[in-house]
Amino acid sequence: MRNVLLDLEYDGTDFRGSQIQAAGRTIQGELERALRQLTQQDTRVTLAGRTDAGVHARGQRANFRTLSGLPLATLQRGLNALLPPDMAVRRVQEVAEGFHARFDARLRVYRYTLYNSAIRSPLARRYAWQVPGPLDGDAMAAGLALLVGRHDFASYAGAGDGAAGRPRGTVRTIHTARCWAEWPWLWVELAADSFLRHMVRNVVGELVRLGQGTIDLAGFRATGEARDRARAGAPAPPQGLCLERVEYDDVV
Amino acid sequence: MRNVLLDLEYDGTDFRGSQIQAAGRTIQGELERALRQLTQQDTRVTLAGRTDAGVHARGQRANFRTLSGLPLATLQRGLNALLPPDMAVRRVQEVAEGFHARFDARLRVYRYTLYNSAIRSPLARRYAWQVPGPLDGDAMAAGLALLVGRHDFASYAGAGDGAAGRPRGTVRTIHTARCWAEWPWLWVELAADSFLRHMVRNVVGELVRLGQGTIDLAGFRATGEARDRARAGAPAPPQGLCLERVEYDDVV
Repeated sequence: MRNVLLDLEYDGTDFRGSQIQAAGRTIQGELERALRQLTQQDTRVTLAGRTDAGVHARGQRANFRTLSGLPLATLQRGLNALLPPDMAVRRVQEVAEGFHARFDARLRVYRYTLYNSAIRSPLARRYAWQVPGPLDGDAMAAGLALLVGRHDFASYAGAGDGAAGRPRGTVRTIHTARCWAEWPWLWVELAADSFLRHMVRNVVGELVRLGQGTIDLAGFRATGEARDRARAGAPAPPQGLCLERVEYDDVV
Repeated sequence: MRNVLLDLEYDGTDFRGSQIQAAGRTIQGELERALRQLTQQDTRVTLAGRTDAGVHARGQRANFRTLSGLPLATLQRGLNALLPPDMAVRRVQEVAEGFHARFDARLRVYRYTLYNSAIRSPLARRYAWQVPGPLDGDAMAAGLALLVGRHDFASYAGAGDGAAGRPRGTVRTIHTARCWAEWPWLWVELAADSFLRHMVRNVVGELVRLGQGTIDLAGFRATGEARDRARAGAPAPPQGLCLERVEYDDVV
């Protein structure tokens, strides 16, 4: 059986999330529907990263096994013709039979976009979180530096995250964490082996409170060290978040 | 009577255009509705530039005369509370009684965004025109250079443009015309005293055909010199266009 890897881009605004659900549009659901139409076979799609409702992806990846003999270019054109306009297959390649888009991913990169202004921006509203007031970029960079490395990120886990029951629990490794600005835009980018559910949004929410001076660096550090979800405040909203890239060892 | 100047941003996707019409959402209509709610007075709003359905604005401007004594900050907050989320008042100032947002504008700057890829981009689809194939940037820059100066732009006038019947007809002065890229993005920016209806979209449509090699520089020049709307091909679609800025002599 062929194993096919897709690079996906989507505008998450009108999706209920990436994973198939009983009701509502999902990335997985749309892909499986299009594959059924194209190949006349039921196909299960595995996504590399799970994204919440409203979260976007520029570089999501997904694989599926198929008996279809369609050439890759035909597969891509066919899927793009059958998929809705808010999602697209940017690239298609064949991978080894054992390849698993989720379990084999060694790095995931998320970027969060902030729009720093007291006044809302209609052109930014779908893809950024509008944050008023001055933001202390140095403080935010110092906060991000504390996150890099292998840590227990329980404080930033989502409510109801099942990670605590799994072998590695809430321990993850953040490889890089940086922020940069081109006013009024500010971006936060995190690269990790994997992320807990809602982790990026919880980190960015706390980071913005640090940038606004609601908490100081000691408070930010204490939140991380508490390993208690109740410590951190509200998560950043979904529309600012985008899954930029997923990387594998043997696949480009 | 006070004369108030607004700086406006809007996402044009769900508007029928800027000017009030018998039916459908318009920028002018939403502004006049919000002003009526806020001041309890009927107020006529004058927009600096007319934008078509689907065209965006980061720097549209508009003025209105009012008997309302509301402080400017209250006016801005009130309007933003009453306006829909796809438009916003970015700035408010009082101007001289005779000031007219449209007739007094001495410069208008439009930017057009191209997304250069064979594959559609869900995240770019609301704000860019997806154009496949290689684009010759040098040819496009050479084409743009031909447009700078005072010319008769009849070839780029919109169908049904009434400009031919007006004193200066279809003669306009383009002050700057440039394009730049950060692949896969490409931008075209035109600054002129004023523009004919559909002029920017008609220019960009022809410019892309030049970049793709469908026409050569001599053909592009011939289109401009023909002063015949039938010469140029289809206009670029509206979603790539954004009114960036409107400038006045005495107002910043």
